[in-house]
Amino acid sequence: MTITIGMITIDTADPRRLADFWTKALGTTVKHDWGEFLVLAPPAEGGPQLGLQRVDDPTPGKNRVHIDAHVPDRVAEVARLVALGATEVGEHTVPGLTWTVLADPDGNQFCVGQSDGTEEP
Amino acid sequence: MTITIGMITIDTADPRRLADFWTKALGTTVKHDWGEFLVLAPPAEGGPQLGLQRVDDPTPGKNRVHIDAHVPDRVAEVARLVALGATEVGEHTVPGLTWTVLADPDGNQFCVGQSDGTEEP
Repeated sequence: MTITIGMITIDTADPRRLADFWTKALGTTVKHDWGEFLVLAPPAEGGPQLGLQRVDDPTPGKNRVHIDAHVPDRVAEVARLVALGATEVGEHTVPGLTWTVLADPDGNQFCVGQSDGTEEP
Repeated sequence: MTITIGMITIDTADPRRLADFWTKALGTTVKHDWGEFLVLAPPAEGGPQLGLQRVDDPTPGKNRVHIDAHVPDRVAEVARLVALGATEVGEHTVPGLTWTVLADPDGNQFCVGQSDGTEEP
């Protein structure tokens, strides 16, 4: 018996505002909108769904749990995400992998990485 | 162009300790252990990988981003997770779905839900 991660949920004061960003980032749509809780449709390219839940006071500071994505063209993807409202936080490289740390419009940091093909992250 | 969520990373003061819990919770193993950063192998049952990264001062309080899992037998799964070191935080029901909120050994809340089959979460 095990659990399988099926969804990632983000606490936010304004789920619909955050859904504007994340539907475009993931190439998906809002599947359920209960006002207090929005669920985005499973992205066509796979991966878990995203949930956005309204809370009065989201915990401030850096999010302790974050999303990582790997993409074939990091530079182009980062430019697209910044145009959608993300902010670039930093860039890091280790052998085989370069990634950019971004923040969504709520300040939730997430990473977009590109492998150079020599090592599977 | 879109991003696909491939990994979820948790900030922690002690990645190996937290890996003890999450490898068993997800039914997987540690794939990479760089000391400061551990990556768990992709779970056999699918879903994103988990990363555990050492930081000196993980942001305190409720994690603003959390993991959701859906399971066929919530009661049995919750009992198993509690035996592994999780703490039960609460239980909620909406039409079609009941879920338990748990906290991992670092206090990261996550949800384990079971659908009654009438509604897809």
